[in-house]
Amino acid sequence: MVRDIQEGSFKYRGVERRILDMVDAGTLKSGERLPSLRSMAAGVGVSIATVTQAYAELEKKGLIEARPRSGYFLRSSIRRLPVPPRARPISSRPQEVTRSGIIRTVLETVGNPDLVTLSVAHVDPRLLPAKALNRIMAQMLKTMGDNSVAYDSIHGNRDLRHQIAFRAGDLGIDSSPDDFVITNGAMEALYIALRATTKPGDTVVIQSPTYFCLLQLLETLGLRAIEIPSDPETGVNPADVADVIAKFDVNACAFNPNFNNPDGAVTPDAARAEIVRVLTERDIPLIEDDVFGDIYHGPARPGTYKRYDTKDLVIHCSSFSKTLAPGYRAGWMIPGRYVDKALEIKATTNVCNSLPTQVAVAEYLRTGHYDRHLRRLRGNLLSQMRTMQEHIARHFPADTRMTHPSGGTELWLELPGVNTTRFFHEAKAREIGICPGVIFSTQDKYNNFVRISCGNLWSAPIKNAVEVLGELACGLSE
Amino acid sequence: MVRDIQEGSFKYRGVERRILDMVDAGTLKSGERLPSLRSMAAGVGVSIATVTQAYAELEKKGLIEARPRSGYFLRSSIRRLPVPPRARPISSRPQEVTRSGIIRTVLETVGNPDLVTLSVAHVDPRLLPAKALNRIMAQMLKTMGDNSVAYDSIHGNRDLRHQIAFRAGDLGIDSSPDDFVITNGAMEALYIALRATTKPGDTVVIQSPTYFCLLQLLETLGLRAIEIPSDPETGVNPADVADVIAKFDVNACAFNPNFNNPDGAVTPDAARAEIVRVLTERDIPLIEDDVFGDIYHGPARPGTYKRYDTKDLVIHCSSFSKTLAPGYRAGWMIPGRYVDKALEIKATTNVCNSLPTQVAVAEYLRTGHYDRHLRRLRGNLLSQMRTMQEHIARHFPADTRMTHPSGGTELWLELPGVNTTRFFHEAKAREIGICPGVIFSTQDKYNNFVRISCGNLWSAPIKNAVEVLGELACGLSE
Repeated sequence: MVRDIQEGSFKYRGVERRILDMVDAGTLKSGERLPSLRSMAAGVGVSIATVTQAYAELEKKGLIEARPRSGYFLRSSIRRLPVPPRARPISSRPQEVTRSGIIRTVLETVGNPDLVTLSVAHVDPRLLPAKALNRIMAQMLKTMGDNSVAYDSIHGNRDLRHQIAFRAGDLGIDSSPDDFVITNGAMEALYIALRATTKPGDTVVIQSPTYFCLLQLLETLGLRAIEIPSDPETGVNPADVADVIAKFDVNACAFNPNFNNPDGAVTPDAARAEIVRVLTERDIPLIEDDVFGDIYHGPARPGTYKRYDTKDLVIHCSSFSKTLAPGYRAGWMIPGRYVDKALEIKATTNVCNSLPTQVAVAEYLRTGHYDRHLRRLRGNLLSQMRTMQEHIARHFPADTRMTHPSGGTELWLELPGVNTTRFFHEAKAREIGICPGVIFSTQDKYNNFVRISCGNLWSAPIKNAVEVLGELACGLSE
Repeated sequence: MVRDIQEGSFKYRGVERRILDMVDAGTLKSGERLPSLRSMAAGVGVSIATVTQAYAELEKKGLIEARPRSGYFLRSSIRRLPVPPRARPISSRPQEVTRSGIIRTVLETVGNPDLVTLSVAHVDPRLLPAKALNRIMAQMLKTMGDNSVAYDSIHGNRDLRHQIAFRAGDLGIDSSPDDFVITNGAMEALYIALRATTKPGDTVVIQSPTYFCLLQLLETLGLRAIEIPSDPETGVNPADVADVIAKFDVNACAFNPNFNNPDGAVTPDAARAEIVRVLTERDIPLIEDDVFGDIYHGPARPGTYKRYDTKDLVIHCSSFSKTLAPGYRAGWMIPGRYVDKALEIKATTNVCNSLPTQVAVAEYLRTGHYDRHLRRLRGNLLSQMRTMQEHIARHFPADTRMTHPSGGTELWLELPGVNTTRFFHEAKAREIGICPGVIFSTQDKYNNFVRISCGNLWSAPIKNAVEVLGELACGLSE
């Protein structure tokens, strides 16, 4: 089973070779439509299903792109985009987490209005439906009268839980509103999930590289981390999970199912199913942070670990912070068998969520605005990412490697020979914020990596910042 | 110094005796105005300052009441109101905290719409300015446009911090907006303060009885508690604090300066100053929860521990949950020397507070609505508490003892011979929620106590509930 998943991608190589041959022969030009699934299948001698999967893979790699209702097209700069970095060899032994110093230095760039911040995994507020949400909130609060200032339940607003449960159903997650706890963003969901499943000194398996705020959270909770490699193209390998839980006393896993921050990895469905299976055998909880799941670039939303959960062991966490309103702090979790503990932690952390923002989001979802908004948002974010990729390809050193994520807002770059912590400081001196690789791991494995965010609307200052960064990187790599 | 504070109240006995003599002689009838400060001072042979303090003390005890701009009046039922319970003898040794089971059972009554809940320390939403806050929020969000959905800083909204710092100045707390961290209610402030000052296994000194959610929080954080007595009339005794920090390894204290929940105790200024002094000598942080401070019944707002803090060791916590909008989750803290740690915990717990509610409260404060609202609110809450006290005096067993708090919303009753955990269950069976004494301590010292909340608007169902409770208590004490 484990081997099959890893070998799956070999089958797609024939399709990739066929496309590159057509490009070399001049029969397929950049920007043109690819052969249909049927004719490609016939040409290569594989099934239509294999071509479908191959096209999805090639889209992840940035060679081709899907356009809604039009099929797949050859990227305009197919030959020039850097290839993705590979997963780094990483020690998968328990490590103390001690990155908070450098993380704090990076975070100081985040709220600094004097910087061009390419260091925040956020979505430009101008892409978010502020006006509609505010109008809906005002209407709802008026209707609620005195109750609009009252405490809500510890579980969170029932209308909002109802709407989220409804959407979870579309992801194959069988849940009722009572299975959810509303949290202040996905961060609070992760915090509650980790406190509900571990105690200080315990060990948590994470993918490497991982979101630096998760490392910070592990550190403040006194937890140790075991890192297993995340491959930008194949995500987490079930064999690695099986391996570490056989060797070490593991108390929980914390993975990102979709568009892992920073490397954009999507762990395939079959791998997810297998990971949940091996963890379930050992009764080890899996915490998943699906905060980028709704920002996919391909034709369909990728799934979750939770849908393979048969024993209430997967704690599903997410929020509307990347798609609607980060400042509303509207997140949620499905704590599964840890629900009593989760409610106790929520109650003793802050009792319940702020009510006005919950009712506004609930009504926004109920009236069907969300899906329309998401379609537009996904188009904008894809186009911003493509523009950023083109500019990086043009201005960064020739040996730069760069991910081609199929969703999310982040790019993960390997700059061979460049000390990216120095790069970070030099960029900061030029009023540009970026995230150095060192903050995404407990180990010194990403000292040549950098994360660049594409959430901001493309603009002249950003274009200029990318040029400055490219020059800097060329200078530092000499 | 310590002795002086404890002996202070003896000086007032002369004034109290004089009033009772006048009542017995028929020269002062219930509801009538008391002699002026000057004539009382002359009659008893003490200074005007002593009479001023004595009147404040007698008001606390419920014998007399202040009416704004009219002086002091004899309570209508002076002879019939039960006397306050005294502080209980309590073991002041470190104790494991293990009350969460029974606390959870009590909390289940809180959100139950089928119950008459006299078990929640909340203020009736009909007494809160929902309409004004909602109108202001809608205006503010419109003005802010796209930024209304964006993240705010980890510190919290600057306008709100500015307004809170301004009010803190009135309490003698010298602070700037940057000294504050906005939190989701005072609960989150307490949670951050405890995590910033302790690690699991550490020991925290608390007053006994104390707010049960604080006990729950200590338990979930793996902390041990040392309880020192809280006297309904004299609060925390500095000698007790000095004693436990000499005997045990204490990592923090967590006290309620004003209208301690449940016993309504206000620790006098001089005692507060002395407590801060002895803790400062040993570098022990003091966490104060001043959430009831603005709901005083007397002529002036009582102070805080923070104003005596010279070494940034007092962590001041409060919120607008009792005065404006519990559902807005607008609380704050001054973390003092623990600010870096507090910000790290805030960031890894939930990044920042919800923005819309912060800007609404900030603007409400800025435009001067708050003080006008508070005056009205205090009047309403005082009248609700007095009505509740009269009804309890009429219907509860003759040997009932009851506090006469000078603020807040809670009454703390001792029912000799009544097992109040049984009382709680019998009341619940009759669809009435109350808080049994057992949840306010780690020790079995309050098994005959019960807390009754007066935050709800007085109504026929509440009047009826008090009668049922009185009958029940009479039955159980036989």
